[in-house]
Amino acid sequence: MKVALVVAPGRWEIADEPLPRPGPNEVVVEVHACGVCTYDLHVFRSSDAYPLRLGHEPSGLVAEVGAQVTGIVVGDRVTGRLHPSFAEHVLARPEDLVILPDSVPFHSGLGEPLAVLVEAERRSKVELGDKVAVVGLGFMGLAFTRLLRLRGASLIVGIDPRADAREAGLTSGADQVFTPDALPDEYRLTRFEDWQTQRGFDLVVEASGSQAGLTLAGELVRAHGTLSILGSHDSRVVQVGMWNWKAIDVVNAHIRDHARLMSSMQVGVGLIATGRLSLQPLITHRYRLGQISAAFSDLAEKPPGFVKAVIDVRL
Amino acid sequence: MKVALVVAPGRWEIADEPLPRPGPNEVVVEVHACGVCTYDLHVFRSSDAYPLRLGHEPSGLVAEVGAQVTGIVVGDRVTGRLHPSFAEHVLARPEDLVILPDSVPFHSGLGEPLAVLVEAERRSKVELGDKVAVVGLGFMGLAFTRLLRLRGASLIVGIDPRADAREAGLTSGADQVFTPDALPDEYRLTRFEDWQTQRGFDLVVEASGSQAGLTLAGELVRAHGTLSILGSHDSRVVQVGMWNWKAIDVVNAHIRDHARLMSSMQVGVGLIATGRLSLQPLITHRYRLGQISAAFSDLAEKPPGFVKAVIDVRL
Amino acid sequence: MKVALVVAPGRWEIADEPLPRPGPNEVVVEVHACGVCTYDLHVFRSSDAYPLRLGHEPSGLVAEVGAQVTGIVVGDRVTGRLHPSFAEHVLARPEDLVILPDSVPFHSGLGEPLAVLVEAERRSKVELGDKVAVVGLGFMGLAFTRLLRLRGASLIVGIDPRADAREAGLTSGADQVFTPDALPDEYRLTRFEDWQTQRGFDLVVEASGSQAGLTLAGELVRAHGTLSILGSHDSRVVQVGMWNWKAIDVVNAHIRDHARLMSSMQVGVGLIATGRLSLQPLITHRYRLGQISAAFSDLAEKPPGFVKAVIDVRL
Amino acid sequence: MKVALVVAPGRWEIADEPLPRPGPNEVVVEVHACGVCTYDLHVFRSSDAYPLRLGHEPSGLVAEVGAQVTGIVVGDRVTGRLHPSFAEHVLARPEDLVILPDSVPFHSGLGEPLAVLVEAERRSKVELGDKVAVVGLGFMGLAFTRLLRLRGASLIVGIDPRADAREAGLTSGADQVFTPDALPDEYRLTRFEDWQTQRGFDLVVEASGSQAGLTLAGELVRAHGTLSILGSHDSRVVQVGMWNWKAIDVVNAHIRDHARLMSSMQVGVGLIATGRLSLQPLITHRYRLGQISAAFSDLAEKPPGFVKAVIDVRL
Repeated sequence: MKVALVVAPGRWEIADEPLPRPGPNEVVVEVHACGVCTYDLHVFRSSDAYPLRLGHEPSGLVAEVGAQVTGIVVGDRVTGRLHPSFAEHVLARPEDLVILPDSVPFHSGLGEPLAVLVEAERRSKVELGDKVAVVGLGFMGLAFTRLLRLRGASLIVGIDPRADAREAGLTSGADQVFTPDALPDEYRLTRFEDWQTQRGFDLVVEASGSQAGLTLAGELVRAHGTLSILGSHDSRVVQVGMWNWKAIDVVNAHIRDHARLMSSMQVGVGLIATGRLSLQPLITHRYRLGQISAAFSDLAEKPPGFVKAVIDVRL
Repeated sequence: MKVALVVAPGRWEIADEPLPRPGPNEVVVEVHACGVCTYDLHVFRSSDAYPLRLGHEPSGLVAEVGAQVTGIVVGDRVTGRLHPSFAEHVLARPEDLVILPDSVPFHSGLGEPLAVLVEAERRSKVELGDKVAVVGLGFMGLAFTRLLRLRGASLIVGIDPRADAREAGLTSGADQVFTPDALPDEYRLTRFEDWQTQRGFDLVVEASGSQAGLTLAGELVRAHGTLSILGSHDSRVVQVGMWNWKAIDVVNAHIRDHARLMSSMQVGVGLIATGRLSLQPLITHRYRLGQISAAFSDLAEKPPGFVKAVIDVRL
Repeated sequence: MKVALVVAPGRWEIADEPLPRPGPNEVVVEVHACGVCTYDLHVFRSSDAYPLRLGHEPSGLVAEVGAQVTGIVVGDRVTGRLHPSFAEHVLARPEDLVILPDSVPFHSGLGEPLAVLVEAERRSKVELGDKVAVVGLGFMGLAFTRLLRLRGASLIVGIDPRADAREAGLTSGADQVFTPDALPDEYRLTRFEDWQTQRGFDLVVEASGSQAGLTLAGELVRAHGTLSILGSHDSRVVQVGMWNWKAIDVVNAHIRDHARLMSSMQVGVGLIATGRLSLQPLITHRYRLGQISAAFSDLAEKPPGFVKAVIDVRL
Repeated sequence: MKVALVVAPGRWEIADEPLPRPGPNEVVVEVHACGVCTYDLHVFRSSDAYPLRLGHEPSGLVAEVGAQVTGIVVGDRVTGRLHPSFAEHVLARPEDLVILPDSVPFHSGLGEPLAVLVEAERRSKVELGDKVAVVGLGFMGLAFTRLLRLRGASLIVGIDPRADAREAGLTSGADQVFTPDALPDEYRLTRFEDWQTQRGFDLVVEASGSQAGLTLAGELVRAHGTLSILGSHDSRVVQVGMWNWKAIDVVNAHIRDHARLMSSMQVGVGLIATGRLSLQPLITHRYRLGQISAAFSDLAEKPPGFVKAVIDVRL
């Protein structure tokens, strides 16, 4: 089978490797699509253990099942957080798979980001009629904006410096979009007097993964509101005084628990299957496995209109 | 001012009465619209204290304010649970009023049912992707169906014996509608073996207010699911064995608390103002104050297409 | 090994049977103690499938482990909901076991009732300072009274017609105890006027399993309070009008989910191990396996001072 | 009446002023006791607006009521967050008062800290059997330790560099106490590998108000655990990477809402009245109004055994 490997700093190669064979409690998944994630880019740039294998957002068909596996058969359409999935096949444990109904195309049935989004929504406790700001309108910010519409937020304000991202924000359901600089004063609670007003957002979702985004997000939350951090922040520094005075809840909305991951993935796939949620408009760029290098460049440089890249492994 | 009075069993009269004058902490509201509610019909039929005054779903304009009232001025558009509102004017305390933005027409800005719906949604804890059944597709069942769409339920099944109600269910967002008799077997958990399966609805909303509806609703809830009782049930008898075995939560989703009433009303008005929720299609019948007797007959007999009656007091 | 069998209506026999052998993913537990539960009595009386095997509250030592079992070794002290446990040995899956620390004696480390109690507490959502009534002061009512003290309820009122049960209620932490008949009027909300007051308990726990107890429990809950049904009620009839008007939450506090059962069991064992909770004073009667018939008679007739029977299988 | 004023940097004077007179909707409270709070000390040191009036933790007797006040009468024992209360009398609105039952002595019925403690417990969502660390064993840390015992935490670890504080931690219910330096390695999750284990505390309460305490507290929380910040942190800097990776909830457990303040105060007073919670052992130092300067010095320097100072205004 073909597999994409990072063989040196910044250099991809497509290698030929033997098909993986399942252990008694494993299955082999024939990968059809695999999303490219900012975290992949981060590892691609920072790791130096070659050859490096990436990809954890696959969907595909079950190709072979181990002797003791029950409940899953060859030909089942599935997704899951499986690694490494920039390859024609990947091994999986049955408990890591969710069935994809026929109504869900492979390239929008990406289990891992669906799980992350649904879990973040659950933990952020969006209430009917909430006023919400989304800081950062990349793939996760836009997808979360769609979830916010689905959950009955009554005002959604999207914030991003890029014009095409703001445009996509409106398409995804934001009521208003702004650059950080043009944000109306009434939305920012920068001074102590502001904190004591009724102003501010019930919920602010940090989806930029940047220091500036995190700082801004903290300024937008009302007293007793919630700051939900969807982006990854491994080296951020925060002045917590304002968070503390405003008595806010800060939710680091990631998943470090297998049962939560899988239950949220199941819900996410269900939303796609019933048409309640569509990620299709956000899958803006598709590449063959041999084009993976271009996929990573585009993710890094974000050409106009770029939101989310998917590798079409079977093309 | 004109006021509608029940003067004898089943007999309405329009009387002329002096305008109410506000106390120092009161305001007078000029009623423009007032919804007619099943509870009004219940009192109309069962009370014998004449003359009887009814109506508690008004919206209108502030006509006069007491000397010590602050924050509300003559001309403000308002709603609230005020009584008796089948009249040209009604007295109110400021803390019982919610401001209606200009974008909310009087006849769909009915504060009381909005509060009841929002509070029921809050207490029913609808989760993203829930499978929900709504038993009874009258005004409250249909309006709640709309809220369920707004809150991201992934399957909504409406149940009502009346064909026009089922049709309205589909228009309001139900995915499937059935008469109670034609409900697929897979949806009912009538036998002990069924209770132990994964089948059943995450949430069942009882909105029929009938014994048959309540009994059916209990059969549809999955183990560890929720039965939310939106209808009024003052003399129902329930065999609680099935509820008990299935370990369900039963939410009697009414409001007996002023702070909750007003906060839910505020949220509900906000949903109408932003267009997230529309009740307009459910306001099927409008009457002048002088036609109130016809409004009550229609509510009792539900002619085809009838969902909700509103009295247009200013016509 | 010795095993207790019901061989005919009301008749126990001790039989000799081969030791069970574990499958590759199973273990054998040498039973040391096994609680006798009201549900056992119910099956003992109503089932007619002989020979009948009972007992699901064991604790003991791991005696043998299957070839593929990891994480559990021979000699581990364990508990779990295992069946049938009125026997010298019982088979178990590893995922059904919780380790018993050395500080937990076998006869008070009964996993199943601990799980049921903890899960009921979790679902009943006891708040700091709650006023709580417990209807029925048998083993479960008394043990829950202890949990209520542990969770900071500020008033606990126990209700039971039996004088020794009321006495045990005080010992277990109730502030006041009453027979149902002597309950002060201020605690009952029997009339419509009462429902509209601030009176009533925040939480009422039904632990009698009787029709009279369930009816009384409903009368004690305040508007917007919670009725938590800990007892089993398979054929009860309830007039839900009062529940409905008072807008209460009704929690059927049983467990029909394996993950919840095991996580609550783990918490319960931890409370015993740290000494936060003691069930020891409630284990009033201990019997050898050969005396199981007497244990069942005593459970049925409840001699003075009887709370909970445990079979000491190794005596 | 006598009132304590800060008249220059670090200088208190006792002045004589006219008794305050209540407006129609106000009452006058005769102050009997008033707690001295770290926040008072902070303002005492940093404000330069003289004369400065302090004190917001009073309890006392209602001395006079305004013409329109209902529900409160002269002689009622009360507490509340009233300002400035280092004085013989203070004005209050009725909605800011909670009645003190006779069983609550004035110097332990301090409404404001009780409200803060109870609200922090509510928002921190202590679960039955939780493992909890308390960083900082001053008055708030010790009082919260008592609440944790009352709420069924199964392990409470107190951390403070001061030996007398650790001793008081044990007396207040901590199971173990450590200096920050002597904390066992197994309790700290400093390296990435640690974050991925099952180790760590379910809940960590930051009650030191210091940068070092906040940093340490973040290291102790398990993945998906909760960090509850009880201390005030107006200029702290936090590296949020670890919080973010561990996906924790951060609760800034202050109160910026009047309704929450008063409802938590009511619960707190109830806990004292029923004896469930005792703060008496923490009131280590009492001063006459004329000794207020010494009270502030002691709070600043914390002589051995010092936990909480109260001004006995009537001595």
